[in-house]
Amino acid sequence: MGKSNRRRGEAGRPFDAVADNGLLDRRALLGRGVALAGAMSAGIGATLTGAAAEPLTDEPWSLETGAVTPPLQTPSRFEAHVVRTLSNPDNEFRNSHARTPHHLLNGSVTPNSLHFSINHSGLPDIDPDRHRLAIHGLVKQPIVYTLEALSRYPMVSQMAFVECGGNSAPMFSPQPFQATAQALHGLVSCAEWTGVRLSTLLEETGIDPRAKWLIAEGADSHALSRSVPLKKAMDDAMIALYQNGERLMPGNGYPMRLLLPGYEGNMNVKFLRRLKLVEEPAMSMYEGRTYSQILPGGKAYRFYFLQEVKSFITHPSFGHSLKGPGFYEISGVAYSGTGRIAKVLVSADAGKTWGEAALQAPVLPKAFTRFRMPWRWDGQPVVLQSRAWDEAGNVQPTRAEFVALRGETKAPPPILGFPNQHFNSITSWRVESSGEIKHVYA
Amino acid sequence: MGKSNRRRGEAGRPFDAVADNGLLDRRALLGRGVALAGAMSAGIGATLTGAAAEPLTDEPWSLETGAVTPPLQTPSRFEAHVVRTLSNPDNEFRNSHARTPHHLLNGSVTPNSLHFSINHSGLPDIDPDRHRLAIHGLVKQPIVYTLEALSRYPMVSQMAFVECGGNSAPMFSPQPFQATAQALHGLVSCAEWTGVRLSTLLEETGIDPRAKWLIAEGADSHALSRSVPLKKAMDDAMIALYQNGERLMPGNGYPMRLLLPGYEGNMNVKFLRRLKLVEEPAMSMYEGRTYSQILPGGKAYRFYFLQEVKSFITHPSFGHSLKGPGFYEISGVAYSGTGRIAKVLVSADAGKTWGEAALQAPVLPKAFTRFRMPWRWDGQPVVLQSRAWDEAGNVQPTRAEFVALRGETKAPPPILGFPNQHFNSITSWRVESSGEIKHVYA
Repeated sequence: MGKSNRRRGEAGRPFDAVADNGLLDRRALLGRGVALAGAMSAGIGATLTGAAAEPLTDEPWSLETGAVTPPLQTPSRFEAHVVRTLSNPDNEFRNSHARTPHHLLNGSVTPNSLHFSINHSGLPDIDPDRHRLAIHGLVKQPIVYTLEALSRYPMVSQMAFVECGGNSAPMFSPQPFQATAQALHGLVSCAEWTGVRLSTLLEETGIDPRAKWLIAEGADSHALSRSVPLKKAMDDAMIALYQNGERLMPGNGYPMRLLLPGYEGNMNVKFLRRLKLVEEPAMSMYEGRTYSQILPGGKAYRFYFLQEVKSFITHPSFGHSLKGPGFYEISGVAYSGTGRIAKVLVSADAGKTWGEAALQAPVLPKAFTRFRMPWRWDGQPVVLQSRAWDEAGNVQPTRAEFVALRGETKAPPPILGFPNQHFNSITSWRVESSGEIKHVYA
Repeated sequence: MGKSNRRRGEAGRPFDAVADNGLLDRRALLGRGVALAGAMSAGIGATLTGAAAEPLTDEPWSLETGAVTPPLQTPSRFEAHVVRTLSNPDNEFRNSHARTPHHLLNGSVTPNSLHFSINHSGLPDIDPDRHRLAIHGLVKQPIVYTLEALSRYPMVSQMAFVECGGNSAPMFSPQPFQATAQALHGLVSCAEWTGVRLSTLLEETGIDPRAKWLIAEGADSHALSRSVPLKKAMDDAMIALYQNGERLMPGNGYPMRLLLPGYEGNMNVKFLRRLKLVEEPAMSMYEGRTYSQILPGGKAYRFYFLQEVKSFITHPSFGHSLKGPGFYEISGVAYSGTGRIAKVLVSADAGKTWGEAALQAPVLPKAFTRFRMPWRWDGQPVVLQSRAWDEAGNVQPTRAEFVALRGETKAPPPILGFPNQHFNSITSWRVESSGEIKHVYA
């Protein structure tokens, strides 16, 4: 059934549309609605009549014994392009970024092999039996924990995203970089973390009433340190020991890290060796300098811990190419450091009309929520956008709103002294008639 | 505070106990209960006075730049023992089992590298661009799908366990094998699967009213085939394309598999190339022979699809060694092919008294649920057990109940012609005074 002979409602849209340029009612996908709405009849699959013989020919892998089963599974050789992109592949004496390929993934879990990482002095080769975590300072009883000791404490598991404060920094540029969701937004990932609530350990050490902050320090040679409000430490902070079921990856803090769900990635101190309770924040390098968000007037936020509500479309996105008009699913990830995602709207006309996306259950607080929107592309150029709301009522800003408040960076790539932190506005993908996809500001 | 001077309630137990031999009230772990209950004061962590200097000495990894960041993260070299165990490492001409190391994992997600796999003719090296899925037989319009075509359809994500019907088969033995949870129960894993609901595709092909079953066939050289009731196909069956966010592992069906949440692993046909709708089941080898559960009287279940409610303790378990009396967490996984886990009870006295474990949220249907129970070990021998209930009211059987109904195998290891399928009774771990752990029948 073509678009031309589909019945139309009062808004001039087909009855199964929720916004212009082909966004479909997600309820149309329940029961027999999909077939009736014609979403599927664009011939995505080939009927068995005609060219039927070819697809059912036995391929070589159906005719011979396959390869040996390995102790640790790794992806197919046909997925060799699904890797993290590296900012410092020769391990020069500076930090190293490895970005998650969001445009090649689906679902809400980031596999451990592809979880983003930033390390400031390489990956330390830590012997877990020799590693120690000390909690001291303004406590009643300072205590040193081995990994084996921590493994005896009551544990919890929590699905949580971790995002670098500098994720999406290329979008501070006045001109849109032509880059994948990996290059733009690859410094955020989501995993199930398992470990000991920090509050459990602080109950054991006791807390001096003067303590208001704690300084978390890593065991890598950078000895990275950040100040954390005691209130967060007593809320949902975790000493994470496992990542998606197995021990932490070396790039994500093996053998233990501080997990502060929803807070700036850098504060989730990896290789955690020390928590010192203090009265005042330390004003360490990463809070006094690197992660101080510069504002248009030259001032800066003193502290900016929370990763605010955000979403971006991963399918389709830059790097994909649409194979002609017809049905596609628009999907992406949404998350908020405040709590659960409440709603994601999707537009196919650069924000003029919006339809509400389906949220994949379970919708968990401070974790990725996959959103999905059915879409029938008519082959004309369109601009795709997503916009997220969280349960506290926070809304992802438009680009114009964001730039007015936080400014742009004049000299790409973002450098120190320019605004380059906590970018969370809408991302826009322009689909050309050719099926090619560009990054645009709209 | 020692056990001797802890106040006791009417049952003669300390006030914070919920069952004998040290099982503690999980509510004691909220707020300051842990410290007050003395659970933590057994000196698990070392105070900073005394031997404080040693743990805070800088280790080599704190003094030098670390290793290069890789495109794909892999575990620390200190975790080299965390691997799947292989039944056929030389890839001889028979099936190959690779078991998940549950005693070394925590949380509810199984990382893709460690997801169990069984393959009957090695790992096929499938080119995803040449692979096809045909849906034919009693349909109105047979259709062939490429992977690229399937990627355009509406998708869903679902956390689901997959379990081999033969998982835990060593427990049919009249004597308990001294083996880890990996060796006993390693043929079950849990992942977030993303793909297209089979019902979406069957709406497109249409269904001949005579169709009652479908035959699913894989593209490996074994051409493994199983019959699936159409009702299940239209319920929650999925053509899975992604596993924990990335494309399926080669051992788990790359580039696509049938996922039948809660149904026997072998039915979740991997490398899926064909779904033929038919009136009667095919009585293929795996349903007419291998996976026909033999009953004590010599009869057999004709079909046995559902993986029933089950749980086992992973921590502590065989292969671990307790480092003396004091506080530990007992934890494990519970799951049911019927739906959500409703309750898990834990016993430390071989089933005489039971306490209710905490269930880690979110409790999802047909997925692993991690359960946790605080425990204070007094150093005497104890037998640990877990027992699960699902939301439909099904209860995991005791060993005696199970053996009476399903029988035992006389000749270990389980061989054809003996009962060796769908073992789901209670597993018992005996903790010796030395801290060593044995597998026992109790």
